[in-house]
Amino acid sequence: MIRFECDYAEGAHERVLRMMIETNMEQTVGYGKDPYCEKARELVKKLCKVDSADVHFLVGGTQANKTIIASILRPYQGALCASTGHINAHETGAIEATGHKVLALESTDGKITAKQIQDAYDEHWNDGSHEHTVQPGLVYISNPTENGTLYTKQELTEISEVCHKCNLPLFLDGARLGYGIMAKGNDLTVADIARLCDVFYIGGTKVGALFGEAVVITNESLKKDFRYFIKQNGGMLAKGRLLGIQFIALLQDNLYFQISEWANIMAYRIKDALQKKGIRFLYDSMTNQQFPIFEDCQLEKLSQTYSFNFWTKVDATHSAVRICTSWATKEEDVEQLIRDIDRL
Amino acid sequence: MIRFECDYAEGAHERVLRMMIETNMEQTVGYGKDPYCEKARELVKKLCKVDSADVHFLVGGTQANKTIIASILRPYQGALCASTGHINAHETGAIEATGHKVLALESTDGKITAKQIQDAYDEHWNDGSHEHTVQPGLVYISNPTENGTLYTKQELTEISEVCHKCNLPLFLDGARLGYGIMAKGNDLTVADIARLCDVFYIGGTKVGALFGEAVVITNESLKKDFRYFIKQNGGMLAKGRLLGIQFIALLQDNLYFQISEWANIMAYRIKDALQKKGIRFLYDSMTNQQFPIFEDCQLEKLSQTYSFNFWTKVDATHSAVRICTSWATKEEDVEQLIRDIDRL
Amino acid sequence: MIRFECDYAEGAHERVLRMMIETNMEQTVGYGKDPYCEKARELVKKLCKVDSADVHFLVGGTQANKTIIASILRPYQGALCASTGHINAHETGAIEATGHKVLALESTDGKITAKQIQDAYDEHWNDGSHEHTVQPGLVYISNPTENGTLYTKQELTEISEVCHKCNLPLFLDGARLGYGIMAKGNDLTVADIARLCDVFYIGGTKVGALFGEAVVITNESLKKDFRYFIKQNGGMLAKGRLLGIQFIALLQDNLYFQISEWANIMAYRIKDALQKKGIRFLYDSMTNQQFPIFEDCQLEKLSQTYSFNFWTKVDATHSAVRICTSWATKEEDVEQLIRDIDRL
Amino acid sequence: MIRFECDYAEGAHERVLRMMIETNMEQTVGYGKDPYCEKARELVKKLCKVDSADVHFLVGGTQANKTIIASILRPYQGALCASTGHINAHETGAIEATGHKVLALESTDGKITAKQIQDAYDEHWNDGSHEHTVQPGLVYISNPTENGTLYTKQELTEISEVCHKCNLPLFLDGARLGYGIMAKGNDLTVADIARLCDVFYIGGTKVGALFGEAVVITNESLKKDFRYFIKQNGGMLAKGRLLGIQFIALLQDNLYFQISEWANIMAYRIKDALQKKGIRFLYDSMTNQQFPIFEDCQLEKLSQTYSFNFWTKVDATHSAVRICTSWATKEEDVEQLIRDIDRL
Repeated sequence: MIRFECDYAEGAHERVLRMMIETNMEQTVGYGKDPYCEKARELVKKLCKVDSADVHFLVGGTQANKTIIASILRPYQGALCASTGHINAHETGAIEATGHKVLALESTDGKITAKQIQDAYDEHWNDGSHEHTVQPGLVYISNPTENGTLYTKQELTEISEVCHKCNLPLFLDGARLGYGIMAKGNDLTVADIARLCDVFYIGGTKVGALFGEAVVITNESLKKDFRYFIKQNGGMLAKGRLLGIQFIALLQDNLYFQISEWANIMAYRIKDALQKKGIRFLYDSMTNQQFPIFEDCQLEKLSQTYSFNFWTKVDATHSAVRICTSWATKEEDVEQLIRDIDRL
Repeated sequence: MIRFECDYAEGAHERVLRMMIETNMEQTVGYGKDPYCEKARELVKKLCKVDSADVHFLVGGTQANKTIIASILRPYQGALCASTGHINAHETGAIEATGHKVLALESTDGKITAKQIQDAYDEHWNDGSHEHTVQPGLVYISNPTENGTLYTKQELTEISEVCHKCNLPLFLDGARLGYGIMAKGNDLTVADIARLCDVFYIGGTKVGALFGEAVVITNESLKKDFRYFIKQNGGMLAKGRLLGIQFIALLQDNLYFQISEWANIMAYRIKDALQKKGIRFLYDSMTNQQFPIFEDCQLEKLSQTYSFNFWTKVDATHSAVRICTSWATKEEDVEQLIRDIDRL
Repeated sequence: MIRFECDYAEGAHERVLRMMIETNMEQTVGYGKDPYCEKARELVKKLCKVDSADVHFLVGGTQANKTIIASILRPYQGALCASTGHINAHETGAIEATGHKVLALESTDGKITAKQIQDAYDEHWNDGSHEHTVQPGLVYISNPTENGTLYTKQELTEISEVCHKCNLPLFLDGARLGYGIMAKGNDLTVADIARLCDVFYIGGTKVGALFGEAVVITNESLKKDFRYFIKQNGGMLAKGRLLGIQFIALLQDNLYFQISEWANIMAYRIKDALQKKGIRFLYDSMTNQQFPIFEDCQLEKLSQTYSFNFWTKVDATHSAVRICTSWATKEEDVEQLIRDIDRL
Repeated sequence: MIRFECDYAEGAHERVLRMMIETNMEQTVGYGKDPYCEKARELVKKLCKVDSADVHFLVGGTQANKTIIASILRPYQGALCASTGHINAHETGAIEATGHKVLALESTDGKITAKQIQDAYDEHWNDGSHEHTVQPGLVYISNPTENGTLYTKQELTEISEVCHKCNLPLFLDGARLGYGIMAKGNDLTVADIARLCDVFYIGGTKVGALFGEAVVITNESLKKDFRYFIKQNGGMLAKGRLLGIQFIALLQDNLYFQISEWANIMAYRIKDALQKKGIRFLYDSMTNQQFPIFEDCQLEKLSQTYSFNFWTKVDATHSAVRICTSWATKEEDVEQLIRDIDRL
């Protein structure tokens, strides 16, 4: 079975692993206060072009999302979010478990607009009885989204402006950030994101690390006591240096972006093959996640050799799946898949 | 200003008040363990025709909703509910504050169907990765709904059957139960509701009491330690007998239902006058809440004398409002309103 | 059975009740925005001599405590409190249910000292790994305490100064405030308390009202969006005017303090009788709660006619009970009790 | 600087690391459903001699504690625990953040007794107003404790019996379990612990793994839907196999216990040297944590070369520190420390 079901089927990029091996028997202090985390913080800040940012390293995405959101909101506030957003759809109510409502905005492709945010804000505040409803307290977006789509610089700028005007911190989930930055047509840099968002993270788990997300807080008012939140939410890794070491390996010599580009290139090849075969897609994605709509008999045939992530039934005879490439995808596996697509 | 904006603009029915006055200087134990609460419990159980039910008295609706829901769900479970449901739309995230997601089902008139419940259940359990999403843990409905609409016996029976099959306790919010029971065309009795639901409450606040909701738990497995939940949620009234006394007054000699019927009759008169005038309605309600759609200029005129509850903008020149009658509505006020409607 | 077990065995003072009767059929807006609440707010502020305070009316003590504490603390902060404090010992974890640890400080008589607060603060901040422990976020005291004891002006001033220096809001639970203010030897006024605390409440439930606590927020930074907290915690009474009306009745013509004084006088008479009989006390109380230590056979005898609140077993043959008087205590009941004490 | 401050200053044992390297580019499913986790589960169950146990792998201790406790308790219940217990003293209120009170029992050496549990249970249930207080819902102990002390088989059996009688699940935190099992004088086996507890975990983070705790649930009634709890608490590692792989390496060929023994032997040598020097200890520990009481001038001298964990000020001129050895402690470092102790 060749796995295209997700971008976390393998371990870590060899350069990440090598640095972990080399430093294995060194002694350091725990909990992320070691020199490796310190150096990794500097690399992240350089990449973001924000000297004053606070950088924290967390193990996984759900943990990062709940910790960040709990740190921003007051108890009666909620998080505006696409209905398809990970915090709304795939985290077992982790946000609600911290006491907060996810305020879902309709979305078909994973994105929301500046206008939707403004409208939600107005709806709350124009209502005379606003203390009877949850107050919007922040905006959560992901880029790339769960559907592989991307925000343009224009779109993110508009969202940022609305958020600023409405005093809603903007939080960007970058679990797959590398794949987005390196996507064909993308016009956003990490520095743009750092400038336009109040807090975001650079995903490691899905881009070459064993695990790890680098949280960047640029808004001064969101920095206070963040380590308490990490600890309380069970996210403070005892051997915290493991996170620093991995991000050093990823951010040195541009590795993070090189391997992201590789995944995208592999995805485009598969996409081309599918398009040539006349297969339609559920979303228009230029990143490492592709959502083709197969005839069920086609899917059955391919599934003998490849594992995909089942997405949704489209009609009586068609289903959409997610095909994921990653930093670890092998060219020969892609070529084999393309041949098998041609033969369908 | 004559208020038709809600059904809690006045104090209590005089017979409720009188009984409070008569018992005022008696000494009783606190926290709902007094003889008045005991007697009221008996009256409630007789009305419900369920000897084995547990009956608790709470002060208000939001408190009742959050206490009941928190008592039923496990931390990773959520409450299925119409998108328009009070717990989803008007309680400032009180349910989420207890850690639970409200799983909203689309609704235009305030009701949900057995099929919607079954579909939501199936969607969760048929998905291989169900531990990544919130597990449906109960069904919340209100009757009458927030939009004045009612479930038929057939509909409630179907919902009850699905809930039973899916092991989802069914919780009915009866904040305006009296108005529903006495509505023209209603075919549900309180005993039916007690039989078909696992827990529900008989609303006092909006039907003649100063405050108070009588929670009836019929499902044996939901009874345990409920008083701990009341206390923890801040709902254990020190002078608990005030709740017992009010429900005795309401349930003796059928007062609760007589005053509910009065409110409905007043509402129908207003409805008739509006219909004669060719005014449309947002929802088809046979209860004490009516939702006419006025031209904005009509509304402006009426608003000089009457207060309504603004509901929604319908189009550029029309708005829907809620007109509420209650046990306390005066016939002369209704007649005056009808005359003013006629003159529009 | 003559009840001395608590100060909430009866209904309301007749002047409170009368005002509720007189206003019963008036129509007002709901949720505490009516003219009666407005007037009551003015009376409270005048009493406190703080024009700029925010005043909110809540139904009960646990609700007030959890709502206020949840409104002040950040998620990783806790409430410093005497080990005997109501929030630590008698509220079924209501504070923890909002996510916060109660940081108990040892106390034998219900009081804590400025030094204990300073020490707890220092212990947290001097520890290098402070993010691994709960950060003190506020100080909760009650006056009178659960044991009937009182803070002197000197003590409260010292506590206030430490709190100010440590940036810890000071919250005073005044469920029995009237009995404290009118106690022999007390040197604190309500205005002193308003000046020295950041938030406190004037208890109505135990001092002449059917229910109700008047929360006074003097610290500007704690005022924001407090009504959201009330609603989310299930404390927003639909017929909110009932709270305003009761506090008007209590605060007009000094009623609140007159009836408090009465309760104290009755308590002193009982105390005298007990002392004459050589009976010792668990705490030295000058308020309406007295904690005599009876021989078990004495207790058995008295318990045939009077109900007390069992407090604790003191040794093999002695037990302490709580004897409560209140605004409603009848002189003849006290005289009868005194006679029966004499006869022991 | 030679670090004796904790048992998580280095990376992983080389055999753990080697297995991670060897499996690095294999593709597996995520979230702990892979064959490595499956195999590790079998090894854990074999070690525990309980075929029917459920085994889950979590990343860290705080996460394990909060996830397990949240999965057991009802909202109004709390966790009985030594006052020194990790969940009470060093987890930033993580348990309270899930809504539960930690019910602290006095302890000087980290242990609690069966009698303390029985007394706490009786105190709750014998009080007539028990719904006003937090109901004990489980017992949390750690072995070794935070102070290096150990339960005997006799003690744990008594605790288990009380817990069983009182219907209180017994949860044992085994973050340093290996060091306890291999301690001189210990008479408990892992199988004993599995038999006597309802749930416990075998700590990897502090015993040779990069991270990871193996949770063993033996009580049937605590197994249901545990994966939902893991996900909601942010503990479901995407590349879950990393946990399985590490526990396979640790549990194969008895590695876990061999390296634990090594740490203990190193600790005993240091202990001997300290005792010869006449230095007293804060607790009597036979595990890898030692708590000597130094004169402050002694401590200052040693601290130039060695880092210890400051524990507490004992008197004006003495302080206790924690000295930790681990699987990674080098013999030459211990010998150097012993020489320097001799020279004091």
